[in-house]
Amino acid sequence: MDKIPVAILGATGAVGQRFVELLAVHPWFKIAAITASERKVGKRYGAACQWILPGDPPASVRDMEISSQEPTMPGRIVFSALPASIALEVEPIFARAGYLVCSNASAFRYEPDVPLIIPEVNADHLALISQQRAERGWPGLIITSPNCTTTGIVMPLKPLDEAFGLQRIFAATMQAVSGAGYPGVASLDILDNVLPYIKGEEEKIERETRMLLGSHKDGKHVEAAITISAQANRVPVLDGHTVCLSLGFERAPSVEEAVSALVNFKGPDHLHELPSAPRHPISVSFEPDRPQPRRDRDAEKGMIVTVGRVRECPLLDIRLVSVSHNTLRGAASGSILNAELLVADGYADNG
Amino acid sequence: MDKIPVAILGATGAVGQRFVELLAVHPWFKIAAITASERKVGKRYGAACQWILPGDPPASVRDMEISSQEPTMPGRIVFSALPASIALEVEPIFARAGYLVCSNASAFRYEPDVPLIIPEVNADHLALISQQRAERGWPGLIITSPNCTTTGIVMPLKPLDEAFGLQRIFAATMQAVSGAGYPGVASLDILDNVLPYIKGEEEKIERETRMLLGSHKDGKHVEAAITISAQANRVPVLDGHTVCLSLGFERAPSVEEAVSALVNFKGPDHLHELPSAPRHPISVSFEPDRPQPRRDRDAEKGMIVTVGRVRECPLLDIRLVSVSHNTLRGAASGSILNAELLVADGYADNG
Amino acid sequence: MDKIPVAILGATGAVGQRFVELLAVHPWFKIAAITASERKVGKRYGAACQWILPGDPPASVRDMEISSQEPTMPGRIVFSALPASIALEVEPIFARAGYLVCSNASAFRYEPDVPLIIPEVNADHLALISQQRAERGWPGLIITSPNCTTTGIVMPLKPLDEAFGLQRIFAATMQAVSGAGYPGVASLDILDNVLPYIKGEEEKIERETRMLLGSHKDGKHVEAAITISAQANRVPVLDGHTVCLSLGFERAPSVEEAVSALVNFKGPDHLHELPSAPRHPISVSFEPDRPQPRRDRDAEKGMIVTVGRVRECPLLDIRLVSVSHNTLRGAASGSILNAELLVADGYADNG
Amino acid sequence: MDKIPVAILGATGAVGQRFVELLAVHPWFKIAAITASERKVGKRYGAACQWILPGDPPASVRDMEISSQEPTMPGRIVFSALPASIALEVEPIFARAGYLVCSNASAFRYEPDVPLIIPEVNADHLALISQQRAERGWPGLIITSPNCTTTGIVMPLKPLDEAFGLQRIFAATMQAVSGAGYPGVASLDILDNVLPYIKGEEEKIERETRMLLGSHKDGKHVEAAITISAQANRVPVLDGHTVCLSLGFERAPSVEEAVSALVNFKGPDHLHELPSAPRHPISVSFEPDRPQPRRDRDAEKGMIVTVGRVRECPLLDIRLVSVSHNTLRGAASGSILNAELLVADGYADNG
Repeated sequence: MDKIPVAILGATGAVGQRFVELLAVHPWFKIAAITASERKVGKRYGAACQWILPGDPPASVRDMEISSQEPTMPGRIVFSALPASIALEVEPIFARAGYLVCSNASAFRYEPDVPLIIPEVNADHLALISQQRAERGWPGLIITSPNCTTTGIVMPLKPLDEAFGLQRIFAATMQAVSGAGYPGVASLDILDNVLPYIKGEEEKIERETRMLLGSHKDGKHVEAAITISAQANRVPVLDGHTVCLSLGFERAPSVEEAVSALVNFKGPDHLHELPSAPRHPISVSFEPDRPQPRRDRDAEKGMIVTVGRVRECPLLDIRLVSVSHNTLRGAASGSILNAELLVADGYADNG
Repeated sequence: MDKIPVAILGATGAVGQRFVELLAVHPWFKIAAITASERKVGKRYGAACQWILPGDPPASVRDMEISSQEPTMPGRIVFSALPASIALEVEPIFARAGYLVCSNASAFRYEPDVPLIIPEVNADHLALISQQRAERGWPGLIITSPNCTTTGIVMPLKPLDEAFGLQRIFAATMQAVSGAGYPGVASLDILDNVLPYIKGEEEKIERETRMLLGSHKDGKHVEAAITISAQANRVPVLDGHTVCLSLGFERAPSVEEAVSALVNFKGPDHLHELPSAPRHPISVSFEPDRPQPRRDRDAEKGMIVTVGRVRECPLLDIRLVSVSHNTLRGAASGSILNAELLVADGYADNG
Repeated sequence: MDKIPVAILGATGAVGQRFVELLAVHPWFKIAAITASERKVGKRYGAACQWILPGDPPASVRDMEISSQEPTMPGRIVFSALPASIALEVEPIFARAGYLVCSNASAFRYEPDVPLIIPEVNADHLALISQQRAERGWPGLIITSPNCTTTGIVMPLKPLDEAFGLQRIFAATMQAVSGAGYPGVASLDILDNVLPYIKGEEEKIERETRMLLGSHKDGKHVEAAITISAQANRVPVLDGHTVCLSLGFERAPSVEEAVSALVNFKGPDHLHELPSAPRHPISVSFEPDRPQPRRDRDAEKGMIVTVGRVRECPLLDIRLVSVSHNTLRGAASGSILNAELLVADGYADNG
Repeated sequence: MDKIPVAILGATGAVGQRFVELLAVHPWFKIAAITASERKVGKRYGAACQWILPGDPPASVRDMEISSQEPTMPGRIVFSALPASIALEVEPIFARAGYLVCSNASAFRYEPDVPLIIPEVNADHLALISQQRAERGWPGLIITSPNCTTTGIVMPLKPLDEAFGLQRIFAATMQAVSGAGYPGVASLDILDNVLPYIKGEEEKIERETRMLLGSHKDGKHVEAAITISAQANRVPVLDGHTVCLSLGFERAPSVEEAVSALVNFKGPDHLHELPSAPRHPISVSFEPDRPQPRRDRDAEKGMIVTVGRVRECPLLDIRLVSVSHNTLRGAASGSILNAELLVADGYADNG
């Protein structure tokens, strides 16, 4: 089939660059337009962007001209890597103009009628879209992906919640610096150090976890009745968020039962035709000292969450450690998978 | 007064070097002998030791000859920085020969009649010594200091336990590489990485916390009835262990009450004459992003624990973060304070 | 064609693991045997090896049994990642038994009749093999690849030497920790630090550069008449050696002429059929702040040397910076390319 | 004597904080005023400043109010930690108003009549002041201290130049991130990486070295006739610049002669009464792997340069490695020593 043209809003930032890297070689999509802040409009991408990923910008994008953030680009799908404050203004303009906005920004993440999606976890929340369109009168739509840390937490929680009824969560995170964008965390702050605070992060983790594991009713989110305490820390790691989790359930599983639920998790069947969907979104390691961010973040192109040290907890029921790639599964790749889901579900057709 | 001669067993290792650095300038003690493994005996300290601390070995120790590990040194106080397996054999030889062994090793830490001491927390546990001497027939004695991570956890717990009755603890640690000794953690393992496992550490933290907050009866330890879940991680930090704590109490305090208990904690009055005892062993920071290991580990010569982010916990009652210097308060300086306590309590007199 | 069976000597070390990773997916070779130290013989690779690369050992090797270091394996090609002292004994045994030993060890690197090869630089030095076989009576042979740092230095020097006659070199290196093997550099030594000394490294760089840019006569190496001063440093980088070079020539080139020589360098034509040979072994960057080890080490699967900041030198003629991947091009991949060259030149045929 | 009131211009930046830390406990000076950018004027220092050094701002300064940058403060001495572009405007205003400006900025560093001073190296260049005052009609004055990297280079060069006539220098630097101020270098750029470029740095090093080792004639700088090639790199180190130097002389010294010149260097006699002047500004290490930035930067309160690996150079005459603390000796402490020199020489008297 012909590739589907897509646009990237905010293509020169840290997450924007990941979108460029991934979409330049995507089997379904091709980059048709890239935008950045006004002063960069008209420049070549290679010149306007300080490329921070390994190597150089993809050859196919290097000479592409940066467009302004107006809804005049070919195709219907746009990926948003905009800062929240700009996303707040720009994303509705695109949705109103008929575009399907797959947003990585937090601007609309907590709106009652905007799906917050991890396809393996809550693809059914796409049902909110009809309410969104009805209420807002948009021919297009906005769907969002969660905060980068939430993804690595919720993925292993999903099968455990389904099987054993999750009630209580303690989460302590050790987050990579790329989660703060570029330039982000100053080296003078993080070398030989830990920063035990990330503004707004604990609230996001706590709320989004309840939303993703929750349901929807009458076109609105219904948060899951789970009590969660998150402590967020920044550590001197480039990519890959590590989370120590302690979990309490309605029916406490044995370690073997918990591992079995994790290993067998696949998500909904219809995902497996999507090019970015891993066969098993969770990999369980039995090495005593894994997962580790540097050694596990890139597994399956950074699309899976690696879980290890599944063991009993003296306080709640089960403890484990998860690692996920925060700018791939936790950001750009996650949004791309969301877009693939929209395409598979026919949202891109009825233009 | 004349300085009291002391010996350092295992003086060339990572903790041994800290003992050398600190005791070379101690107001009460002077280094009379240093030991190391057999192949180094007879060599000059400066030549036998690969000094890993900043600067060079103290001039007064550089040319001191390394002795063998036999109980023939002047004075009565010996500090042990021996590996556990060697401490197991060597420390009793010294105790039997009349020495007061202030050990940093784990070899005797869990013996029912061996005090595990943080002076501000449980100086009264020294009472176990009479049982130890009676049962073992030692004119000397062994006292131990806890695992380096436990210290930074128990110090802030003590005043909170006293005031509000501690029942449940969740602890997630981010530990410095110096906690593993030298050469310890390989750079290929820890650069741009987190290791979510430290062998035996979680068990040590859980058990020692209950011992230190416990009591003693009939000459034996009685562990506190506290449920604790610890998750231990190694991070790319040189010195200073950071711990995220979530705490549940019999009588849940408000944040203000918890802060007040922490700020006012002083430990027993008679400690304040000891040269290494800080006036306030806990410092509470009100900056949103503190404590941090690099910026707080050296406060008060590394003898205090810095606590911050005291706030409510959605799951238990109170959350906070603590930072302490693992090779100072958590190792060498802690043992030296223990020795000062022995001297103040008269144990060094009745030779 | 059927894949050629090869063996890896010393397969569990840092470079050995790279051999395993690369040969598991090599188009010409298949791993037929792996060896390690005596105590690991008979164990499964996955169990005997602490895998330090990202992810897990390749599935095809994980269950392979570790053999002892005896010349009884199928095929004729063996890769040696042995420590120098063991290579000294073991490699000749294999050569005498008819194997083609492609060694990454330094044991035979300075023998007058043992080729030290970077195919693009001095493939003609393979001519030494006939002398080696004649003198030593070996049906097999030993060829070596240079020290990991030398490779990144010599590659850009080759075209400049050919075009302008290299006479003087100043080299200051900033080397990655993986160059020291595993466990190698202690984290306590290198975090927040530079180590301005690597034992034996400067001598190796200086001598090997003269050998590689030199010739051979009467079956022996003739070193190039180049004066070189190397200063070697270890920095907190995982992979990728960075070198600042200042160069003096017989005929001083302009910056443009130097860049042109670098960009156009291809090495001998007959290399281009080899699967590991990059089309252009040197990539020249025109960004002001490149090359950088993290961002350039993996270019072209770590097989190319990236050069940048080509500019005039106030003291000699031309300055530049080079980055190369020390465990790929500078170690395992380099030896594999050497083996491919042996195969292409027919050395593997005449068994 | 009563302490001399001083002001700090730009007191909230990275170097400004060092001035605050050092002057809060200085034996001669007391902080009478601190300035920062306009939007901070009137705020308390503790609230206006994000303190990035260990611990907290000194208690004596925490509540001090930030003044605007106008020459109305008590005393005559001001320290400038202003950005170059602001220093260009503000420093002359203070000099014109009669203040002695000890500047750490580069704004006036290359003016022919402005002394660029390292007291041990070229205290005699203060003679330029009379020309400066005559030409500019200033009752006050401006003196500058060199770029942070230059200091660690020039200090060891001085005694070698005096004894053996320095002619040629090759310098490759490995610079700490604190040299770039705060927030400065992004962690995403420097973790697991080397940046082989620092804007303008090589030019500064080359020029300032010639100025500092040069002389003055008719009230103007005369640069030394030395050829120097500098290559500047940023490495993941917090504080302490490391430089590999290769040196060519008129009369080539033996290694012993070079070491002897370095060890015996003291600078002019009259410096030794200055409180910040170390007895020996150069320390020579004979350990094979020293100096190292983390282990040597703090020697003598960061006021000395540690030199090691003094050895022959195959290309020039002598090679060595130097480490110096870039924000102490190379910035704030260096300027404070300059101010002490001004006081000792009577410049602060004749108000």
